[in-house]
Amino acid sequence: MTAVLALTLGDPAGIGPEIALRAWIARREAGLTPFLILGDPDFLAATARRLGLDVPVVVGEPEEAAAGFDRALLVRPLARGLPLRAQAGRPDPANAPAILASIEEAVALVRAGRCAALVTCPIAKHVLYDAGFAHPGHTEFLAALAAAPGEAPPRPVMLLWSQTLAVVPVTIHVPLRAVPDLLTADLVIETARIVDRDMRVRFGIAAPRLVLAGLNPHAGEAGSIGTEDRDVLAPAVESLRREGIDIRGPLSADTLFHARARATYDVALAPTHDQALIPIKTLAFDDGVNVTLGLPFLRTSPDHGTAFDIAAQGVAKPDSLVAALRLAGRLSAR
Amino acid sequence: MTAVLALTLGDPAGIGPEIALRAWIARREAGLTPFLILGDPDFLAATARRLGLDVPVVVGEPEEAAAGFDRALLVRPLARGLPLRAQAGRPDPANAPAILASIEEAVALVRAGRCAALVTCPIAKHVLYDAGFAHPGHTEFLAALAAAPGEAPPRPVMLLWSQTLAVVPVTIHVPLRAVPDLLTADLVIETARIVDRDMRVRFGIAAPRLVLAGLNPHAGEAGSIGTEDRDVLAPAVESLRREGIDIRGPLSADTLFHARARATYDVALAPTHDQALIPIKTLAFDDGVNVTLGLPFLRTSPDHGTAFDIAAQGVAKPDSLVAALRLAGRLSAR
Repeated sequence: MTAVLALTLGDPAGIGPEIALRAWIARREAGLTPFLILGDPDFLAATARRLGLDVPVVVGEPEEAAAGFDRALLVRPLARGLPLRAQAGRPDPANAPAILASIEEAVALVRAGRCAALVTCPIAKHVLYDAGFAHPGHTEFLAALAAAPGEAPPRPVMLLWSQTLAVVPVTIHVPLRAVPDLLTADLVIETARIVDRDMRVRFGIAAPRLVLAGLNPHAGEAGSIGTEDRDVLAPAVESLRREGIDIRGPLSADTLFHARARATYDVALAPTHDQALIPIKTLAFDDGVNVTLGLPFLRTSPDHGTAFDIAAQGVAKPDSLVAALRLAGRLSAR
Repeated sequence: MTAVLALTLGDPAGIGPEIALRAWIARREAGLTPFLILGDPDFLAATARRLGLDVPVVVGEPEEAAAGFDRALLVRPLARGLPLRAQAGRPDPANAPAILASIEEAVALVRAGRCAALVTCPIAKHVLYDAGFAHPGHTEFLAALAAAPGEAPPRPVMLLWSQTLAVVPVTIHVPLRAVPDLLTADLVIETARIVDRDMRVRFGIAAPRLVLAGLNPHAGEAGSIGTEDRDVLAPAVESLRREGIDIRGPLSADTLFHARARATYDVALAPTHDQALIPIKTLAFDDGVNVTLGLPFLRTSPDHGTAFDIAAQGVAKPDSLVAALRLAGRLSAR
């Protein structure tokens, strides 16, 4: 059976609907695996008309997607209906139930084996908070949906992936001042284990090669520029190597991302958000993909936000969503 | 009169002598401005023989360099002689007086107007410390040499320059943990003033466009991820703009270095070492140039170290020194 991907629309006042329509238009050129959108079919058809995009929208189930994907964009209405009434660029908490149901029903299809992987369009947390959403973000919501009954949710790990580089920020949206204390050996070890396992299981890399960037300039120069690299990161790497994980470091972050260095590893872990995101956004600004590791299913997403400021103006680029769909399709086909 | 550059050899046990010889060999292809080396001519001639490099070495003064540069490498012996007895890869504190005299005499030639700019090969501080050197580093030593009698030395600012990107780390070799407290508005303002002035004076950019990267992820998202961007960096930028300096920021560091973003500025200032050095070493690993701003003369250098581990093995790449000589020549010709 051909794999079918479950795609959520994200916030309908953002660029999600537009880039989803444009991704379908690019389906042949990009060699996309069939996908199914969870959400309001009338809203999608109206969005296509308003943007002048020739996208036939049909209602259906995942099992019909493989046969019909080339002719029409398949949409599965939400169980409770929940029509969208979005104005582009003006997020509305009234849409929160539909935004959340799209994610919940997409996860349910993937967990039931009816879809092969989850691809999500961006949401805006503040819109959902206003409607009572209580998770720190999109990924934590997915982890909660992935939890086994009565158990703690799995720890998700964010991987930024592109053709040229894959990086994992060990800390993410935290003040830089807090990073040295948050960066424990346990955090590094737990993160590297998840990356190593998912590189094998999801990416099919038999012997993943990991590197860890240092926290301090020049990875601390043996303790002379900060002690965390010597006292926390180096022992964590030693411990991981004893488990059989192929990881090197801590290595000077500034010399870790040029072409010859990149050829020596599959994934680079970096202590801070910017150490990881600067190189991938410098090298692959338009087509980086956000991959969530550590979940019981594969999830990819574009590495940008809702972009309310350019929604429905016909200028949103679908490149990152296309890359997210293509990666999810490729990994699902394994 | 044709400009002549003063080149120091750096530590003779490192790759300095080799890359200096190879830079002379590349003089036509790279279109290099004539340069003069300050140091032991016999050592350079012996190094050329040992490496099998066809480099005639002649002794002379800067005024002879322009006419003879194409035919031979011009070397000016140190005032006190100070022959070098270096073994490649084995730094020797006995060479410290010659290493320091090479720098002092090169600076003197530039300050006297007999050479147009200073280009330095790498030194190893620990070798000099063992011989009683008391400055924090190469650049601070140059600042001390540049001080007017009885006055404090000027504050040097490190610029990393390449064809594709120029960056200034506002803090350099300090523990990451110390950066948030070191990053005062005064430091940002003083650094940006020097960058703005030297972009005009040294680089000939009539209206330099500067940007400042944020300290925290996404430049703090209006204070929700760390407060320094909102409370320290934003007011510093406002203050600089009131002075007439064209600087924007703080901007999210991860989206500041892709091609479209780079087209909007001449120099990016970044709070941490890695925020500045990761993008330039990712984009221009072999031919980045270190430029010291804030001195009363122009100084460039390769952006690598002594590389004792590969000295005199015939594998050292002169690319960064060639780029440093070329940039110094181009800026001197203005």
